[in-house]
Amino acid sequence: MPDINIILTPAEFEYYKITSSDNIIVVIDIFRATSTIVTALANGAKSIIPVATIEEAKQLKEKNYLIAGEKNGIPVEGFDFGNSPLEFLNDNIKNKDIVITTTNGTQAIHTAKNAGEIIIGSFLNLQAVAEYILQQHKNVILLCAGWKNKFNLEDFVFAGSLTHHLYSTNQYQLASDSALLGYLTFDRSRRKLKEFLNMASHKKRLENLNLDADIDFCLTLNKYFVVPKLVNNKITCLIHQNTC
Amino acid sequence: MPDINIILTPAEFEYYKITSSDNIIVVIDIFRATSTIVTALANGAKSIIPVATIEEAKQLKEKNYLIAGEKNGIPVEGFDFGNSPLEFLNDNIKNKDIVITTTNGTQAIHTAKNAGEIIIGSFLNLQAVAEYILQQHKNVILLCAGWKNKFNLEDFVFAGSLTHHLYSTNQYQLASDSALLGYLTFDRSRRKLKEFLNMASHKKRLENLNLDADIDFCLTLNKYFVVPKLVNNKITCLIHQNTC
Repeated sequence: MPDINIILTPAEFEYYKITSSDNIIVVIDIFRATSTIVTALANGAKSIIPVATIEEAKQLKEKNYLIAGEKNGIPVEGFDFGNSPLEFLNDNIKNKDIVITTTNGTQAIHTAKNAGEIIIGSFLNLQAVAEYILQQHKNVILLCAGWKNKFNLEDFVFAGSLTHHLYSTNQYQLASDSALLGYLTFDRSRRKLKEFLNMASHKKRLENLNLDADIDFCLTLNKYFVVPKLVNNKITCLIHQNTC
Repeated sequence: MPDINIILTPAEFEYYKITSSDNIIVVIDIFRATSTIVTALANGAKSIIPVATIEEAKQLKEKNYLIAGEKNGIPVEGFDFGNSPLEFLNDNIKNKDIVITTTNGTQAIHTAKNAGEIIIGSFLNLQAVAEYILQQHKNVILLCAGWKNKFNLEDFVFAGSLTHHLYSTNQYQLASDSALLGYLTFDRSRRKLKEFLNMASHKKRLENLNLDADIDFCLTLNKYFVVPKLVNNKITCLIHQNTC
């Protein structure tokens, strides 16, 4: 029976001593990188290229990519987009390659990319990701991007909700205490998910920047039926249905 | 208002960027290091000296210390004691200095010792530790030893229970999502604590070694009113009352 693991921050990854490269790894950065990537691809972007620094993004702008990103939640001068998913609800992104820079999300992707297939998860595409995983029969690692290697509630609750989906099929086992706690935390908070996440510290950080609309959007369940996957440092849509 | 933080593993410690050395740090390794240290001191040991390796312990045995420890849950040849708290319920330890080697607990102590006063916490002395902290009016860091830098449920639930004790006085604020989740997890599991912890992976590991009596003992609440503190690499009792 395949395993489900939740890894709480990118810094914890190495301690899991993952030797196989035959895993599915779901990278999770709810506020806002993975929600934004899902939104951009669902709305027609051709690919998303995650890079670690603002400088790398600026170099790629010179090669005619659109560039998106933020620094500590604030837009960067010279960038085409910030890191808000709402900015990607427009026709200008159709068939475009977009470079995105995000400290936590990109770090998580780079940490994990040799350990398996990298999938991008968010509340917006939870069901699509769950269905895709169930078809693969592989060990699953849910990697929370966190906030500068500290534990983040919203990433963990999403990991818990995906764990709940998979474990409830009786086709997976919970392989760590973090997966167990994720399962239990979601099971106990599912009826009041938004209320529960109201207490998260990163949500408060975004509220201070007047990003309430972003927060609401990022917590919308199953808005898009897309499964973004990293291949050769580009994220593209493995599965894309216009309706969910 | 002072902060409460829960740090989930020693590896996460550096990311909290703790600059003040004026904190109280409670080191938590429920199965079994901190439960054993509390038991030994409550039963008359003069001091406990935590060391990182079996070799260091053996060198100190030549200097007439008693030595205690385990490797992966199994007693070590030539040692006077293993790592079971039950072994320290005897008169031979009275007024003795005891060297203890334990990978996770010792690592946690060494990681944190420059960031404040190191206190040893376990379910056995929860009330004593909580009362001591409440007298100090300092920021509190609850450092879970975990299992080889992976998240452990029993350490986290203890951290959550201590967080609950402190936060309920309205004299502290929850300074991180991990502290918030610890508080909520304890609040929701308090009536069924042993049942909840039955699912923990490290508990299962100990059960496989027939250590059920140890597990029961380590989950006993407030058996001892002692507050062990690290001073100059030795742990001694700051507060000791024979009755609780």
